[in-house]
Order: sequence, then C-alpha cells, then structure tokens
Amino acid sequence: MQSDCVFNQYDEMYMARAIELAKKGRFTTTPNPNVGCVLVKNNEIVGEGFHQLAGQGHAEVNALAMAGSKAKGATAYVTLEPCSHYGRTPPCAEGLKAAGVVKVIAAMVDSNPQVAGKGLKILSDAGIEVAYGLLEAQARALNLGFFKRMEHGLPYVTCKMAASIDGKTALNNGQSKWITGAAARQDVQLYRAQSCAILTGADTVLVDDAKLNVRKNELPQALPTQLPLRQPVRVIIDSQNRLTPNLALFAIESEIIIFTTKVDKSQHWPHFVKHIVVTASNSKVDLTAVLKKLAKLQFNTVWLEAGATLAGKMVELDLIDEFIFYLAPKLIGCDGKSLVNFPELISMQNTIDLTFNECTRIGDDLRISAVKSSLKPLDTKE
Amino acid sequence: MQSDCVFNQYDEMYMARAIELAKKGRFTTTPNPNVGCVLVKNNEIVGEGFHQLAGQGHAEVNALAMAGSKAKGATAYVTLEPCSHYGRTPPCAEGLKAAGVVKVIAAMVDSNPQVAGKGLKILSDAGIEVAYGLLEAQARALNLGFFKRMEHGLPYVTCKMAASIDGKTALNNGQSKWITGAAARQDVQLYRAQSCAILTGADTVLVDDAKLNVRKNELPQALPTQLPLRQPVRVIIDSQNRLTPNLALFAIESEIIIFTTKVDKSQHWPHFVKHIVVTASNSKVDLTAVLKKLAKLQFNTVWLEAGATLAGKMVELDLIDEFIFYLAPKLIGCDGKSLVNFPELISMQNTIDLTFNECTRIGDDLRISAVKSSLKPLDTKE
Repeated sequence: MQSDCVFNQYDEMYMARAIELAKKGRFTTTPNPNVGCVLVKNNEIVGEGFHQLAGQGHAEVNALAMAGSKAKGATAYVTLEPCSHYGRTPPCAEGLKAAGVVKVIAAMVDSNPQVAGKGLKILSDAGIEVAYGLLEAQARALNLGFFKRMEHGLPYVTCKMAASIDGKTALNNGQSKWITGAAARQDVQLYRAQSCAILTGADTVLVDDAKLNVRKNELPQALPTQLPLRQPVRVIIDSQNRLTPNLALFAIESEIIIFTTKVDKSQHWPHFVKHIVVTASNSKVDLTAVLKKLAKLQFNTVWLEAGATLAGKMVELDLIDEFIFYLAPKLIGCDGKSLVNFPELISMQNTIDLTFNECTRIGDDLRISAVKSSLKPLDTKE
Repeated sequence: MQSDCVFNQYDEMYMARAIELAKKGRFTTTPNPNVGCVLVKNNEIVGEGFHQLAGQGHAEVNALAMAGSKAKGATAYVTLEPCSHYGRTPPCAEGLKAAGVVKVIAAMVDSNPQVAGKGLKILSDAGIEVAYGLLEAQARALNLGFFKRMEHGLPYVTCKMAASIDGKTALNNGQSKWITGAAARQDVQLYRAQSCAILTGADTVLVDDAKLNVRKNELPQALPTQLPLRQPVRVIIDSQNRLTPNLALFAIESEIIIFTTKVDKSQHWPHFVKHIVVTASNSKVDLTAVLKKLAKLQFNTVWLEAGATLAGKMVELDLIDEFIFYLAPKLIGCDGKSLVNFPELISMQNTIDLTFNECTRIGDDLRISAVKSSLKPLDTKE
C-alpha cells in the first residue's frame, strides 16, 4: 500500500501525542505491539488511550471508551493500522466504524499478516476517510520487535556490551566489577524490563552467578505505567548441560528456558524451568533455531547479555539487530578481555559494519547505540 | 591573587567576544598564548584584536590600534592578564595605561612567571580599575598547552587513538586502512594544525611510511585566519636508530626532531632534521626527558599519534593530559590489535581513570574526548 496523503501540523501534533501514549505500554503489552490512539473533534481531544496489556482493550477501545458519544464525527489518530481480526478482543476497525468516527489516520499499515491493510479496508469500505504514513518512522520504532517477528519470524535482538573505552570487558584475571558505573547498570535494568527475554550463555551464568532478573529498586525512575513489572523470560544457551539447579538464577521464581542439545534428567529442576532441545550439525545449540523458536513463542524482543564467545557467534550468524555499548572512561590495556570473539578477519573489507544511532552520557559512562548498517533503510522516512 | 569582582551580563558578552577573537590565533601564535581583547566605551566596541603571530602585536596592541583616540576612557576586556615585561614587544599593561583606558577586566591572571600579577599591578598602581576571573574556565581552555608549560615545565599532550567500536586499531595481519572515515581523518588534520609538535615512534613511521605533516587540502574547512599554516614539528622517538633518510617523512622539508639514545652518524640527514640524545636507565629514550626538552624548546602542545606500545608507555608514565578517541562503527573481533599496551592490571582499582568531556559525530564515526580524572578540577570554575 502506498500513501500520498498530505498531513497538516495539527495531524502531526495529534499523532505525536498518540506515539507518546503508545510508549507507556512498552513494559507490558508483549506479545502485542505498543499502540496509542487519540480521538479529535473540532480540534479538541475527546478521547485517548493506549494498549496496556495483552488480552485487554486495544488503544482504540480505550480511547473510544473515554470519548463516549463524542466519538461520533471525530478523527482517530492511531499509531498502527486498526486491527481487522477477532483475537482476544473484537476488531478495532469495527469499533471505530460503530462509534461513528469519520476519519482515521494511521501512522503505518500493520505488517501482521492477519491485518496487513484489511483494517483500513474495513474502514474505507464503510465510507470512512482513511490516511496513513504520518510519523511512520517513529511509529515503527515503537515496535521494532513486533515487526521483526511479523516480517522475518525472528525476534529483534539487542546486544548489550559494557567495556572500557579501549574495548575491554574485564582484566585478564577475569575481574570486571565494575567496569561501568551504577547509572549504566540501572539503565540496563530499564532495557531488561522492556524486553520479552534476556538471553545469555551458561558461561555468564556460572561466572557471575547471575540472576538476570529485573530489580524494581534498581530501575532509574518511576515507570510510566502503574501496571505490574513483567519479568522477562530468562533464556540460557547451555549446550553441555553445565547449569545446576542450585544457581542463584533458579532462586528467582520466574520463567526460564534452557536451550540445550540433550536434557539432563539427573537434575531436579524447579517448575518454572523449561528445557528445549535444538541441536545444530556441530552438536551445539543451533542459535538460529533458538531465535526462530522464541519468535514462535511470541517473543518480540531479546536482550542479549552474553560473553565474547556467544556474542561473537551471534554476530557471525548475523542475528543481532542492534548493539548498546556502555563505555566507561577507563583504560585496561591490551591484556584485558576483548568485547567480541569471532573468527579472525583477513581484510578490512570484512569488518562487521554498523551505523551509530545515538551517544548519550549515562553517569560517568557513555551509552552508544548502533544498528547493523543493512538496517539503515528502516529509518530513512524520517 | 583572588578576585571577588562582580560582573554583569555586558561584561560577560564582551569577554565572550574576546574569547572568540582569541581562538582565531590558535593555528599561529605558538609559543605565545592565544589572547583576545575588546575595548568598550559607552557600551560600544571601539576596538578589538587578537594575537596572531609571535613577535607581532599582542591582542591589546591590535585592539588599541583599531580604537585610536577612542581608547581614552574605555574598558578593556582581555582573555589573559596584560603582560608586564619587555619581550619582542613592549608591555601591554603600559600600552593600556598610555592609551587612557580606565578599567581592565582580565579573564585570568597569567601563570607565566614573568607576568603573574605584575601586569595587573602596573595598571592598578596607575589608578586604573582592575578586575579578573570572568569566564576564566573558557579563557584557560584557550591555552591549556601554554599554562601546562608555564606551570609544570611540560607540554600539554593529547593522544589520538582511532579504533573500531570494539577497541581494535587494526586486524591481526596489520591491515588498518581505513578504520575511520575521511571526515575523521580530516578532523585529525585540524588537530595537527593546532599543535606545536606531532609525536610518534619509529614503528609508526616505518609501518605506515607516514609523513605526519599538515595537508592544507585535507583540512575540513577554511581556516579562521589568513595567516600561513604552520607545520608542527615532527618529533620521532627512535631508540634504536631504525629511521633512514629515504623515508617519506624526510621528503617534506619541515623541521623534524629525532630523539634517540645515540646519533647514527653513518646516515646523511637533511638540514631540517635534528637529533637529540636522551637516554633512560633502561637504555631507551627517556620519554619524560623528551617532554621536558620539548617544553624547554617552547612547545606548548604535543599531538601524540602513536602505536599501542608508545601510547601505553606514555600512559604508564602519566604523561598524557587528554585523549581523543575516534571510534568507527565496526567490529573487528578479539584477534584485532588492541589500542594501548601497558603492563597487565591485576585489580580493577588500577585501571587508568579518565573523565569523558565530549562525544561528537564526525562523519560516520564518533569522536570522544577524555581527560585524566585528576585534571577534572581545572574546569570546576565553570
């Protein structure tokens, strides 16, 4: 679908508001996308809402509920094409139609094959004026994970790395506490809280006896929603069954998935631990299969906090969409541990090329985000 | 000296103008500091100037020349205490006095022992109102090198490093062209052009057959002065006399100083090449002695473009004041060459601690500046 609609500054203002609303759902809507909706009549907002929790009202439903009879004759601004299918809630396109909305502006068409233009068609068939493509890049950025899953059958993987400014994650003797400061570690908690899964390797769990949970008291600020914090599912790659139930990881009662090549039946695992076997031809866990499986389980986003080996493997397999580097103002020197381990390059043509997005100061450290260079076209509309 | 002067917004505006003027001299005034001067009468600028070239008029002289008879009764804003001594030009404090200036506001007292408050005293003894300490941090930043030399007998050393975001300067096979993009390399030219010396080791010269000169056509923008570009003196550490006169370095006719442990008399060196012997107890070149010698030769600033070994040695000896990291959006992996080589750390307490100043995008790369954490207090007045 192509849109050649012309939007004015008011349209942009209301859509920007809808995007702000959508963001409030970012800790809670999974596996659904974050969506915001604003209803405007006579240049006045008569209703607004956002999607909060899967199974509960969509953004449009919440905005219509607020507007009541004022929805009749209003224009709806939605950050995503209204849905057309009966899921856990009835289709929003029908809801908007029934409420007497006269115009719908969607930031973007939904790439969910169950929708994919059908929502807009229901509206336009009902004589409602339809437009889309307003602030599309920002709207897409709300749901990179949801769209990656819909379009590629894979979750959106963000790889977190923390290092000194000379690219070292630890001393040669393994000491690494703490490379980055408290503010950076709080910032990591915020990313974890927004992720469907935290992915790591058995090594990291064993070395740090890591819990990999979201700790509310370590979050940097009050969350923008009153809804309960979700604990991302902790996903561990453990090809050789090195994990044991006595680790700190298993003391937190919250879902864990262990990907392995063979389930270790000698151990007694807590009820919230699930084992999944996916073996590659090299008798290790097949990482691509892991991500496909996670997408099938409706994981939109994966936050990868791994050591140099697993991160390197993921880089090599081109499975990472985005990197978040926390760089500390420290030098560790050449004996320190390197950030990422993949086979030796023999030509500068073969470097893994990224595009820097943003550099922000977090406490004394820097947070630098970068995406795969091949992802660049995603944002060109902005 | 302590100042408890109160300044108003006009004072600040005129001093900011004087600082802008001073910056125009940054490619040319060495070994003198950059200084700007603004003369104001009845809230109108009647004269302004900056120091352009050593041996030529100081900022005050140029501003007074522009003001002519209007200087009588004016207030002078100068970024540095007016000089009190007869050097290549007569003392500016006397010039301001003779011109009938009624008030002098200096951003800071000069730490040059030949001045050090004497300039302000001449003025105040003559009944001229004197104040100082306005925008002092910015004024000090104009001349970090000059003050380092005056206060410590050492030049201000800025270490340039270029690496991938995972901290690698080259592939394992030595390939490194190009880690960073053209814009970053242009940016380096601009730093070189502002430096008194470019310091490197014989290794870097031999591996890259580097010329280490300033190439006007590679500078990113028109320079803010019509004065001729200076070529920084190229300073090479060559403990083992590995350099030979046929290298590209020596094809550029511009001063070179080679620090060595013993002069190689078998070679015929061009007339612009000088050898200086400074031997440390380990029979290598004594790097601290090199910097002291450069300060004695009136070098304010040194731009260090060295490999991991020399840079690491300089870090170890605590001889670097500032780092400029150019980070490229690339991953090279753990087999790549590390940024800086110093003895292995055994505790996280021993990391070399820096403070990030600034992060700027340069083309596709990032430029991150950092100073030694111990230097932080320098800027606390701001």
